[in-house]
Amino acid sequence: MVASKRIGQQTLAFQNPPVILGAVAIVGQKEGEGPLGGFFDQIEADPLLGEKTWERAESRLLQQAANLCLQKADLVPGDVDFLLAGDLLNQIIASSFCARELNVPFLGLYGACSTMAQGMALGGMLIDGGMAELVLNCVSSHHETAERQYRYPTEFASQRTQTAQWTVTGAGAIVLGSSSFAKTGLARVTEATLGRVVDYGIKDPNNMGAAMAPAAADTIAQHLADTDRKPSHYDAIITGDLGTVGKKLVLQLLEQKGWQVPSLLHDCGEMIFDAAQDAHAGGSGCACSATVFCSYWLKKLQAGALKRLLFVATGALFSPTSYQQGESIPSVAHAVVVEGMPNGGGS
Amino acid sequence: MVASKRIGQQTLAFQNPPVILGAVAIVGQKEGEGPLGGFFDQIEADPLLGEKTWERAESRLLQQAANLCLQKADLVPGDVDFLLAGDLLNQIIASSFCARELNVPFLGLYGACSTMAQGMALGGMLIDGGMAELVLNCVSSHHETAERQYRYPTEFASQRTQTAQWTVTGAGAIVLGSSSFAKTGLARVTEATLGRVVDYGIKDPNNMGAAMAPAAADTIAQHLADTDRKPSHYDAIITGDLGTVGKKLVLQLLEQKGWQVPSLLHDCGEMIFDAAQDAHAGGSGCACSATVFCSYWLKKLQAGALKRLLFVATGALFSPTSYQQGESIPSVAHAVVVEGMPNGGGS
Repeated sequence: MVASKRIGQQTLAFQNPPVILGAVAIVGQKEGEGPLGGFFDQIEADPLLGEKTWERAESRLLQQAANLCLQKADLVPGDVDFLLAGDLLNQIIASSFCARELNVPFLGLYGACSTMAQGMALGGMLIDGGMAELVLNCVSSHHETAERQYRYPTEFASQRTQTAQWTVTGAGAIVLGSSSFAKTGLARVTEATLGRVVDYGIKDPNNMGAAMAPAAADTIAQHLADTDRKPSHYDAIITGDLGTVGKKLVLQLLEQKGWQVPSLLHDCGEMIFDAAQDAHAGGSGCACSATVFCSYWLKKLQAGALKRLLFVATGALFSPTSYQQGESIPSVAHAVVVEGMPNGGGS
Repeated sequence: MVASKRIGQQTLAFQNPPVILGAVAIVGQKEGEGPLGGFFDQIEADPLLGEKTWERAESRLLQQAANLCLQKADLVPGDVDFLLAGDLLNQIIASSFCARELNVPFLGLYGACSTMAQGMALGGMLIDGGMAELVLNCVSSHHETAERQYRYPTEFASQRTQTAQWTVTGAGAIVLGSSSFAKTGLARVTEATLGRVVDYGIKDPNNMGAAMAPAAADTIAQHLADTDRKPSHYDAIITGDLGTVGKKLVLQLLEQKGWQVPSLLHDCGEMIFDAAQDAHAGGSGCACSATVFCSYWLKKLQAGALKRLLFVATGALFSPTSYQQGESIPSVAHAVVVEGMPNGGGS
């Protein structure tokens, strides 16, 4: 077996592209009422999911997404070689509690809202290299846990700025399999571009779109340079959760680098809520890009409406301690190329 | 190229074992005054390292370890394919800030104090699979940042229980290279066993040894089962930071599983401080196992005094929020087999 081929500085082309065998998006009520409501697998009306704390509720979301994803792929936890998971909570406890239930080898990741793409890239590498047959990736976020941890508890009712984004309550899960599962694959992951940490000096935790846009532009431009392609190679370039503010900025930054992509670039943070939902600059959180990718975009690929996507999840790598100490917000973006199955999706 | 071979449920045998090209351990004053003081690369007398905050100081430790490690291996950051790093701070900001300086593709990890072994296992997989030629692993911890975040700020002067451990101030870094660098290798990583999350219901953040011992026992026993070996296959089994309390427990748990290893098993948390240093149950933190492994144990391998080690770093996957909400402390342990170079070390 020939393993991944390195292209350029930051990109790997999988020689035995891993396939997506199952994907699940579970969201909260507000997300379910948004424009993509019809695409999600499950909408949870109770933000506590019957649990006593927001944190337990978030871990429950993750567990539900993981279990449903395995079920859809006709697998049980014991089939999985590795669980790659992460979330926004301090010490990624939602993921650790989920890993305790699943009882499979666990590699905890932290890439903030870029975690789903980081996991897909890493899972793809492990499968392409022959180190795993099946890898489960999952991520979560929860509006109440995130606001309390990063900004103010929502009970505080502090006024939100217009650049602020709304942390998505939800969880996304994807199970990746080796190319031997190609027959039942929904789509395949053919390349990955791993991002560097970029920091343009933004210090406002209520303007994460501005903090993350430079990382997204850096990774997209690097991917195009590494592969010697034009953006039109893709039917869509999908950023994670830049929101309306960050999307404008990434388009400007890409234009400065010579790429005009306003009609190609879609942002999951902008898509998940509509203007009437008072989410200000859009959605954010690990679950934002994960749930939109695992539902809307994957279904488009399966239906053959789109052939090839560049999925670029972005993460703001700050903590409440770091910004209270006056530090700026470093960001990262990881990208994966996802293509429809050559002979149509498996389901 | 043939990639890693899966052995049993959780173990991978590298077919092209990655080699350790450089390793660095930087510690604080207290660690430098301990029994291993003579083995460390650098001892920092100033716990703030000239910075304004403990968190910046921790990130500085990480950056210094990373840079010195690359320098010792005659490399520059741009040579490295991936930086795999993690720490204990919320949102692993010490690692993100370090990644910003190094400017290479960054995969953030969270495995608490098991992070060095997690990174070595993952780095080994990426190299063995041909996805990378050079991977830099680094981790850090800092007594002041950890106490403030997990328990009480040290200015509070709260009395520590006898089961409490002392978070090591320090950073460890290892650069792994593909087998094509074997000539200059100090040692090689031949296998990895990735751990599951184990939770025996311990809820006391001042007794992490008890929380982590079951995870260490689970991974060690699984490794022996997967490889069909006896513990005596190794010259030493090195646990991360169980301390005196956790070490007693892991020995008991392993005895229940049929393995008597009291003379083989050494714990980095027990080794790093001596009784006179008032560290109670021993050292802890990501940097505990990392600095002891990167100095004392690696030097023993290089000198040929030992041939083959099982390095088992353990992590307590809790957050202050989770234990304040009454949750128990899930734990994980990842193991790597590290062997001396067949013809002696490179330096």
